[in-house]
Amino acid sequence: AYITKDGKVIIPGASSFNGLNLVPQMGWDNWNAFGCSINETLVLNTAQKMVDFGLRDLGYNYVVLDDCWSEGRNSSGYLVPNQKTFPHGMKYVADKVHDLNMKFGMYSSAGIYTCGKYPGSLGYEQKDADVWASWGVDYLKYDNCYNQGQSGTPKLSFDRYNVMSQALNKTGRKILYSLCNWGDDNPFDWAYTISNSYRMSGDIYDSFDRPDSRCPCTEAIGCSWPGFHCSVMNILNKMAAIQSRSQPGAFNDMDMLEVGNGGQSDDEYKVHFSMWAMNSSPLLMGTNVLTLTPANLAIYSNPAVIALNQDPSGSVGIRKWRTITKDGGEIALWTREMNNSDTVIALINAANSTMTLTATAADIFLDQSTAGSFAPAPELSESWDVYDLWGNRMSNDEAATVLNGTAPTIEATSNSTTRYNATALSYADGLNANNTALLGTKVGTMAPHGSWSAKLDRHSIGLFRLRQASNNSKRKRDEL
Amino acid sequence: AYITKDGKVIIPGASSFNGLNLVPQMGWDNWNAFGCSINETLVLNTAQKMVDFGLRDLGYNYVVLDDCWSEGRNSSGYLVPNQKTFPHGMKYVADKVHDLNMKFGMYSSAGIYTCGKYPGSLGYEQKDADVWASWGVDYLKYDNCYNQGQSGTPKLSFDRYNVMSQALNKTGRKILYSLCNWGDDNPFDWAYTISNSYRMSGDIYDSFDRPDSRCPCTEAIGCSWPGFHCSVMNILNKMAAIQSRSQPGAFNDMDMLEVGNGGQSDDEYKVHFSMWAMNSSPLLMGTNVLTLTPANLAIYSNPAVIALNQDPSGSVGIRKWRTITKDGGEIALWTREMNNSDTVIALINAANSTMTLTATAADIFLDQSTAGSFAPAPELSESWDVYDLWGNRMSNDEAATVLNGTAPTIEATSNSTTRYNATALSYADGLNANNTALLGTKVGTMAPHGSWSAKLDRHSIGLFRLRQASNNSKRKRDEL
Amino acid sequence: AYITKDGKVIIPGASSFNGLNLVPQMGWDNWNAFGCSINETLVLNTAQKMVDFGLRDLGYNYVVLDDCWSEGRNSSGYLVPNQKTFPHGMKYVADKVHDLNMKFGMYSSAGIYTCGKYPGSLGYEQKDADVWASWGVDYLKYDNCYNQGQSGTPKLSFDRYNVMSQALNKTGRKILYSLCNWGDDNPFDWAYTISNSYRMSGDIYDSFDRPDSRCPCTEAIGCSWPGFHCSVMNILNKMAAIQSRSQPGAFNDMDMLEVGNGGQSDDEYKVHFSMWAMNSSPLLMGTNVLTLTPANLAIYSNPAVIALNQDPSGSVGIRKWRTITKDGGEIALWTREMNNSDTVIALINAANSTMTLTATAADIFLDQSTAGSFAPAPELSESWDVYDLWGNRMSNDEAATVLNGTAPTIEATSNSTTRYNATALSYADGLNANNTALLGTKVGTMAPHGSWSAKLDRHSIGLFRLRQASNNSKRKRDEL
Amino acid sequence: AYITKDGKVIIPGASSFNGLNLVPQMGWDNWNAFGCSINETLVLNTAQKMVDFGLRDLGYNYVVLDDCWSEGRNSSGYLVPNQKTFPHGMKYVADKVHDLNMKFGMYSSAGIYTCGKYPGSLGYEQKDADVWASWGVDYLKYDNCYNQGQSGTPKLSFDRYNVMSQALNKTGRKILYSLCNWGDDNPFDWAYTISNSYRMSGDIYDSFDRPDSRCPCTEAIGCSWPGFHCSVMNILNKMAAIQSRSQPGAFNDMDMLEVGNGGQSDDEYKVHFSMWAMNSSPLLMGTNVLTLTPANLAIYSNPAVIALNQDPSGSVGIRKWRTITKDGGEIALWTREMNNSDTVIALINAANSTMTLTATAADIFLDQSTAGSFAPAPELSESWDVYDLWGNRMSNDEAATVLNGTAPTIEATSNSTTRYNATALSYADGLNANNTALLGTKVGTMAPHGSWSAKLDRHSIGLFRLRQASNNSKRKRDEL
Repeated sequence: AYITKDGKVIIPGASSFNGLNLVPQMGWDNWNAFGCSINETLVLNTAQKMVDFGLRDLGYNYVVLDDCWSEGRNSSGYLVPNQKTFPHGMKYVADKVHDLNMKFGMYSSAGIYTCGKYPGSLGYEQKDADVWASWGVDYLKYDNCYNQGQSGTPKLSFDRYNVMSQALNKTGRKILYSLCNWGDDNPFDWAYTISNSYRMSGDIYDSFDRPDSRCPCTEAIGCSWPGFHCSVMNILNKMAAIQSRSQPGAFNDMDMLEVGNGGQSDDEYKVHFSMWAMNSSPLLMGTNVLTLTPANLAIYSNPAVIALNQDPSGSVGIRKWRTITKDGGEIALWTREMNNSDTVIALINAANSTMTLTATAADIFLDQSTAGSFAPAPELSESWDVYDLWGNRMSNDEAATVLNGTAPTIEATSNSTTRYNATALSYADGLNANNTALLGTKVGTMAPHGSWSAKLDRHSIGLFRLRQASNNSKRKRDEL
Repeated sequence: AYITKDGKVIIPGASSFNGLNLVPQMGWDNWNAFGCSINETLVLNTAQKMVDFGLRDLGYNYVVLDDCWSEGRNSSGYLVPNQKTFPHGMKYVADKVHDLNMKFGMYSSAGIYTCGKYPGSLGYEQKDADVWASWGVDYLKYDNCYNQGQSGTPKLSFDRYNVMSQALNKTGRKILYSLCNWGDDNPFDWAYTISNSYRMSGDIYDSFDRPDSRCPCTEAIGCSWPGFHCSVMNILNKMAAIQSRSQPGAFNDMDMLEVGNGGQSDDEYKVHFSMWAMNSSPLLMGTNVLTLTPANLAIYSNPAVIALNQDPSGSVGIRKWRTITKDGGEIALWTREMNNSDTVIALINAANSTMTLTATAADIFLDQSTAGSFAPAPELSESWDVYDLWGNRMSNDEAATVLNGTAPTIEATSNSTTRYNATALSYADGLNANNTALLGTKVGTMAPHGSWSAKLDRHSIGLFRLRQASNNSKRKRDEL
Repeated sequence: AYITKDGKVIIPGASSFNGLNLVPQMGWDNWNAFGCSINETLVLNTAQKMVDFGLRDLGYNYVVLDDCWSEGRNSSGYLVPNQKTFPHGMKYVADKVHDLNMKFGMYSSAGIYTCGKYPGSLGYEQKDADVWASWGVDYLKYDNCYNQGQSGTPKLSFDRYNVMSQALNKTGRKILYSLCNWGDDNPFDWAYTISNSYRMSGDIYDSFDRPDSRCPCTEAIGCSWPGFHCSVMNILNKMAAIQSRSQPGAFNDMDMLEVGNGGQSDDEYKVHFSMWAMNSSPLLMGTNVLTLTPANLAIYSNPAVIALNQDPSGSVGIRKWRTITKDGGEIALWTREMNNSDTVIALINAANSTMTLTATAADIFLDQSTAGSFAPAPELSESWDVYDLWGNRMSNDEAATVLNGTAPTIEATSNSTTRYNATALSYADGLNANNTALLGTKVGTMAPHGSWSAKLDRHSIGLFRLRQASNNSKRKRDEL
Repeated sequence: AYITKDGKVIIPGASSFNGLNLVPQMGWDNWNAFGCSINETLVLNTAQKMVDFGLRDLGYNYVVLDDCWSEGRNSSGYLVPNQKTFPHGMKYVADKVHDLNMKFGMYSSAGIYTCGKYPGSLGYEQKDADVWASWGVDYLKYDNCYNQGQSGTPKLSFDRYNVMSQALNKTGRKILYSLCNWGDDNPFDWAYTISNSYRMSGDIYDSFDRPDSRCPCTEAIGCSWPGFHCSVMNILNKMAAIQSRSQPGAFNDMDMLEVGNGGQSDDEYKVHFSMWAMNSSPLLMGTNVLTLTPANLAIYSNPAVIALNQDPSGSVGIRKWRTITKDGGEIALWTREMNNSDTVIALINAANSTMTLTATAADIFLDQSTAGSFAPAPELSESWDVYDLWGNRMSNDEAATVLNGTAPTIEATSNSTTRYNATALSYADGLNANNTALLGTKVGTMAPHGSWSAKLDRHSIGLFRLRQASNNSKRKRDEL
């Protein structure tokens, strides 16, 4: 950290342009499940259920209303909500959401229309920011449709999105700014100084790995046509190259979660949820909360995986290797360094049969070994306790009790290994306290210079937290 | 739909910048067959034959005069038609075309010259728009030659083409704006707010699938040199990625039709015509109407295929899969959702021997299954009646009677299965009425969770309309 | 042709921005052979030898002095020639060249330095154009070094080069403008309205087909780093895609010829010379004329090949097919339509052993067959007499007499089959008169729907002119 | 050379925008080994050891302090050093460094923050240049982080970096300008007129050839996402295409050296050091000098390799061939022409087993043979003495005496074959005098039209200087 002459404390790598979102935002967005079929009741009922199911207290506290909420502009040029679907107006909705100790998000596009061809904000940025602030909006998802050709160089995109960034700041209200230009013009190279998260791919769809003509790029870099219908594995692999400027306050956004929408297996949804968490992506539930199944609740509610996502480091996953398998699938190792010097590793079997995958210490601690340390990386010669982050997944029976309201309330003092209340005890504090719900199940130890293997079914993940077996303090080094 | 405060009704996804072209334009353009060998007689004779052959009443109502019509500018800077080839001037031609209840289109380029090096409109946009409006022009094809380097970013291209868009609007006359920049700078990402259709590839030539050095790109995205001499299959495959913003009022233009020009087999022309229709491309006859053969008339006149193109949905074809075959050819499945909840499927055999191709319900209804529905797609568990859209193709004998003027007139009350009069009964109304000419021949039923197969000759297509076997109402969902 | 209201006759496709260079320029440039080792004597001696050897009268009439001629700017900002190497100044040199009925060319760069780091013209365009005009300069080669980052979009390059184009025109002197930006930003898409020729690749080097790390692109399109050390085959293949706007007055420039510099075999130099001629590239001798061998003179002096290059059509070669051979080489067929309805075909064996290559009528006349003719191409059903354009190559013995000054003078009335005087009888007139020196040797006839084969050694070419066997007039059609 | 009218002597290819850096800069930068863990003591102790170990007198005379030295701006907007880590301020540090006859370098970024998120210089260029000049700074490394989207075309990057170039010049102090934009927008095409060196790749890491997802490009050209974690071989191969404008005063910068950091074998570090030297890259030690091992000192201190780097020609390495081996590795030949007409060749075995590699005269002298010489290259018919540039590497025993201070001092008159003092006798003078320490060991002779072979272990290099066996003067030719 450094202190400016006027006394402002700056923590390099740990701030954001507006002070918000030092860990990735969590919440719900209606788009993936409902599209334009939205109304006040859906929003408020969903918010209530998120409280009831413990989701709010797990961190899912933004309720985001996506496209199709407007009916035009009034004679003063201000946006007006659809009177049929939002009969009490948006301030009413925001107030109700706030009454639940949640936050309210809305949507617009940096174009003349939204993607659904409702009025867009291009040229109306301050007016729109002002009206949202007046309603009590806490979050803006800002899309890229109908942008009148104002893209093609980073400068054109930066300048266009910066107008809204400044407009939001000028309202005086703290509004999380979720930039959504699908990766056009490499936002991972410029969006972090003007936004809190930035989409890096075309839209997700509910498929694990199916290629789709409409999502033509396999790399985020230099993709001039992001498209949509991008699979989980397509988006995940795009992340491997572009993480270097992700930081507390400004994260690559892999798009909303599809868990619960029916297009993937339970194992596949676990890969999806794990890797979004691993990469510090925002975690926005994209399904119908009102009809959530126990199995899907158990995925969304895994505290050990959420704690990975909400780690104060704001660090990112690193793909150490990826191999295309002979059956046309792939396997990979991702790792991530945590704030408390733990390391999380993800072994992914996206091939088409059961395989045993192995992570070696050399691969896991590659960055330590090649960081110009002029000495062997001490991590290599240590023993590591290994915790399975899915080891304490809530059973479907227990999840059913949560859904039907018969489960006990979770307090800060809870010793549940399957449920967690981050409102009562933050993830940072819980991790400091070695809260068992955040660690998963201890499944073994990795020896010095050793390796860790996991037998994994087709399309499944092994997600492990490695913690020093001894209490020796670990070398800590800023990597900028 | 939403209503602006001043009472304007906006139908998201169903409007255009000037209100025109909610379904793709149809008509004739002289270029492919005649190039610069044009004159008044050719235009007017062709228009008359289009009426006589029932083509106008099938929807081919624009008569478009392409390049090489001008002899320069007069001292006031207005364009002057060639006095030898258009001795009565262009207003005369337009009036004659209007007398036939057809519309008249003309051509220019957003450069200092046209492609034929006649005067271009760059810098003369308003003068040229004004003179066209004064002549009664209803349509402008606006090319990209000699543009003085004003391309290379979407913004440069958008701005240049927008000048003419605004000039046309300012004339007060409704003029369909056909933007023709061959896909430079991704017009599928910006042209829809300023034009009614936009070319997405270099020029077509009369070949089914021959690669040509002069058409170097195989993808439309990021192609900085569209070239020309692009085959039917080259253009078709470029479409698979870029359809997402096609919409009523603004369509990707795959270029003029080559049916009748002699370079392809009857089967190949059927693929060509079918897939242009399937993808909501403009359908502009590009051949010599005066010498049309019965077989080619039968292709151009197939009401069931035209109804696919003119569907009020303005939806697009989606390539669900494409496989390169061992003989160096390819096979593919395309599908399209229709306004009335039917689905059309196209199985294409572009390989070099007869093959049986199969479309599964899972592929056909993929979008319904992955649309965040949080429930199985109901389409999967339904039965579907299957209609062959080429099943009622007019016989050559019947087509000959049309060409020689001995065929009966087609009225709205006609029960012909092979011919249709859309002037008397619109395609939308005809589809609502289950007009048999628009459905083709019923050839079977696809069972729930089943599939549909067709044995297809080399370079041929199977084009089928699937309709729910029961009367159960089908789920309908806006996809934006 | 069309006539503007003020009486100006415009021939579409047959003019240029300054009226010059309706066929490709020919001449000599010192760079390839001498680099910066230049002086007055070299220039004037070379010019004299070009007259003596009949090269001027074959059309090589531009004597171009390349980089390194300047010693800076004077106090008024005008360029000053090096006083040691050009002791009498440049007007003296130009006058001497003009006395030989030849034209004088010079060099600069659209940057702050030339490539040799002498003063460049960026920011001095009018001053430099004025001083060149005052010296009597007829030709400017304008390079791209040290351009201060003013490239990266067509607009940036166009605007920079256009400043000099306008400066040259403003001098009032007719100066051929040879734009040399190595293909950056696709000049084949914009340079034709401001220049007479435009380089489309990095610099050539004296190698037939060796790949070189310093010439990284294999396509001209979108090549952001043209480099140098590009081989003959590299440059040739880059041409296949980019010819569409080449036209009388503005040609793609494949760079100066290497014939005579020692790095290639006689057969390879024949491929090189033939294909530069075929593609309407400027023909600038890039060797030491003073030490020319008989064999190399015979290549440079082949009237039948030069007549191909200087055809009034200004048309271009079209690569009909290219096949990579198993030995890592390649074979190809190129064709070109001539002004008098002849067709020239080039069969290239760039593989590593002798092969018999075949051109079919279907390939040769592909464009006629697919041009929307709505009728079979008549060319297919005709017989064609075949002339070998290298059949009458001057023997080394005869070439030696030309070099030693004992050969007879060539007049317009000459019936030599090996030598030609285009000053006395233009190529256009000679072709109209069926001058035998321009036709090569008749070697056979291609039957209707037939083909033409040639057995070709490794790295050699078969270059043939096809002429209708009967006197039937051939269909002629503008292709724009 | 040429002389401007006002008497200024310009040596084409041998100057720079500010007169500095006619041979590549050498020195030390803390980043690779220490990152942000910096302070006054580290800097000054390192400088002292560089003197003590003879490194300064070998040419390593710049001591560069990288990121994280600032604590913000004062109320006048000037940067302020961190008071804890640099308690005496920066002028103190610079003075101390100057007292050792060394030069002092600092770091900033052409963005709103440095990469470590300290204040950047974008918008503060003159203020920052002024304060650095006031402290006595001699060198600026200017990074690319947080540039607010001001990239994407050469012009945007050029203009942004040019502001600092002019600001540095305006201070009146001579400050070496090390441009560090990682190759964005092809700086090898524009940076040489405004800077003294320019990074051409994403950051190096201490690995010989491991691919890393975070360094996605394999070519420097058109790489829109340079990334970091680029291996030695990755960076080396990127150099092959982009060297054409490297010149005395402005060099491609391959990034700081990793020798000594532990991630590579001794053989691999020799390849790394040799090829950085071969390509005229700046040589900045990137390790902990205080803990240097004898083996690593011996690499950094090889005078024969440094003399290659510091050759007055400022010429570059040329990759004559590269072959991917079956084991997934690669082999290559690089060559470089020296100022004194010697040629250096590098045979690289980056495959995975011992191989004998051969360089033929035809490959070595390719450029001479294809330079338009219209005569055989004389180099081909000469004999060449071959010197192994690693033949006289200092033994570890001798290196240990240097490190422990017991080695003798090296004077200009030294006849050591292993150590050198360039302060006493410049490399240019030493080469002229055939100083044995600069030549390595003679290991044989290459016959006319012959070849040179070396048996090389896995991941090792053969680096040889070829010198004409006779005293015949060698043809010398400017290649521009």
